[in-house]
Amino acid sequence: MRWIHFSEPADRPAAAADRPTRYGILDDDDRIHAVRGTPWMAGGGEKTGQVHRLAEVKIEVPLVPRTFYAAGLNYVKHIHEYAAKTGTAVNIPEQADIGYRAVNALVAHEEDVVIPSDARQVEYEGEVVAVIGRQARNLSPAEAMGCVFGYTIGNDVSERLWQKSDRTFWRAKNTDTFKPMGPWIETEFDIDRAETTVRVNGAVTTHFRSGEMLFDMPTFISRMSRYLTLHPGDVIWMGTDGKSPNIVAGDVVEVEITGLGILRNRFVAETR
Amino acid sequence: MRWIHFSEPADRPAAAADRPTRYGILDDDDRIHAVRGTPWMAGGGEKTGQVHRLAEVKIEVPLVPRTFYAAGLNYVKHIHEYAAKTGTAVNIPEQADIGYRAVNALVAHEEDVVIPSDARQVEYEGEVVAVIGRQARNLSPAEAMGCVFGYTIGNDVSERLWQKSDRTFWRAKNTDTFKPMGPWIETEFDIDRAETTVRVNGAVTTHFRSGEMLFDMPTFISRMSRYLTLHPGDVIWMGTDGKSPNIVAGDVVEVEITGLGILRNRFVAETR
Repeated sequence: MRWIHFSEPADRPAAAADRPTRYGILDDDDRIHAVRGTPWMAGGGEKTGQVHRLAEVKIEVPLVPRTFYAAGLNYVKHIHEYAAKTGTAVNIPEQADIGYRAVNALVAHEEDVVIPSDARQVEYEGEVVAVIGRQARNLSPAEAMGCVFGYTIGNDVSERLWQKSDRTFWRAKNTDTFKPMGPWIETEFDIDRAETTVRVNGAVTTHFRSGEMLFDMPTFISRMSRYLTLHPGDVIWMGTDGKSPNIVAGDVVEVEITGLGILRNRFVAETR
Repeated sequence: MRWIHFSEPADRPAAAADRPTRYGILDDDDRIHAVRGTPWMAGGGEKTGQVHRLAEVKIEVPLVPRTFYAAGLNYVKHIHEYAAKTGTAVNIPEQADIGYRAVNALVAHEEDVVIPSDARQVEYEGEVVAVIGRQARNLSPAEAMGCVFGYTIGNDVSERLWQKSDRTFWRAKNTDTFKPMGPWIETEFDIDRAETTVRVNGAVTTHFRSGEMLFDMPTFISRMSRYLTLHPGDVIWMGTDGKSPNIVAGDVVEVEITGLGILRNRFVAETR
């Protein structure tokens, strides 16, 4: 089932933060069946009877996470390529240590990614995102996937020079608009059959098997839950493989993952 | 003015997450004047007429931040002591690069910090916390403090062996209960006259001038706002000075900052 977070153009005031939004079920005929509340929260998910056409709504970020987790380095080829590009040592993680991203940077499918005027090397990272649907602590790997509500796509946009020069990833990874997520949440997903394809201006630039991770989702979730409580509305971005060309203003980047859809964003120059 | 976030014992169901909470103004006679909504949000802060006694309520975490920022290394003495203790190089940051912590780890004044059974070296870090009250982008250092609603106290509890061994700070800093914050939010605060004192079981173990930071709050906020939007309800933990003894189960740690009050938490052993 596909859960979409949307607003109607007629509803939208100038300030995006105040925009009334709601969830709906997206059917195979591109109709949205609106529901009450938030599907993975108590009392959410009941159909209101309202139906919209996908083409007539604005797609919103699927959710603003409570905690925004990110695996970071989690595909072997990407680790080698990152080391070669930045002139740093190859650093294959020995254990599943989760990292963090920040919600200020989120944008929806079809919203622009703004490249700051002093950014020099901007790259994409196409990622599988797990959305947590129920509170969880001390899960075994076998139990881990039971707390996942569904899956979406993330583009972990990164400025590689800041990633190398700064003590943390704050602006390299979390500059406003650097975290496209969407287009919707799919509850059925077979990661072992999925492929991630990234296109820049329509041409394929990266292609890999989505499930060939160093540490898979059950490993990450089980290990995280040994020390911390996962909450409904948390997300976990699972990392990326391959490499990205330098993305410049005017480029359109599409991340497609089998079964999850296409996340598409145009990159534009900052105007100050 | 002191804003306190509280619940009444009679209101509390078993699950802490579902506990009804509200804000109030704490006066000099330890009375709480309850208000509607959230003081720094639209429509919040109007008195309801209800008055409670401080001794009769449960103090809650002042807020669950939207984004939980932390300066990390921001006092020179602490940087030297951390390097000596961990056997790593002295690393004085050259620029104000903000980091992140996670909301799962928050606990309130007087709530317990639970030491995991496999933790070996647990330390406190007493910190000034700035609470953001309005949306902000591209602030100059002179403008920066205008987006701050008030201040509270944080204890950035850390497991130093994990901090050294792991690729990120995820469990070293963000294990459940490792982030005491409180006891309330004070809107008037003169950091240049403030001192931070930490006591373990009543004996002073750390004492430093709160304002002797490597990068002060206007510097951090201005630099952050060049790349990211600050939002009402974000918090920024400003780092710590000095060193901490190894904290063990049974210890009570108090962080006192001039004008902000005392944040007190007992450390207990995990029971699994």
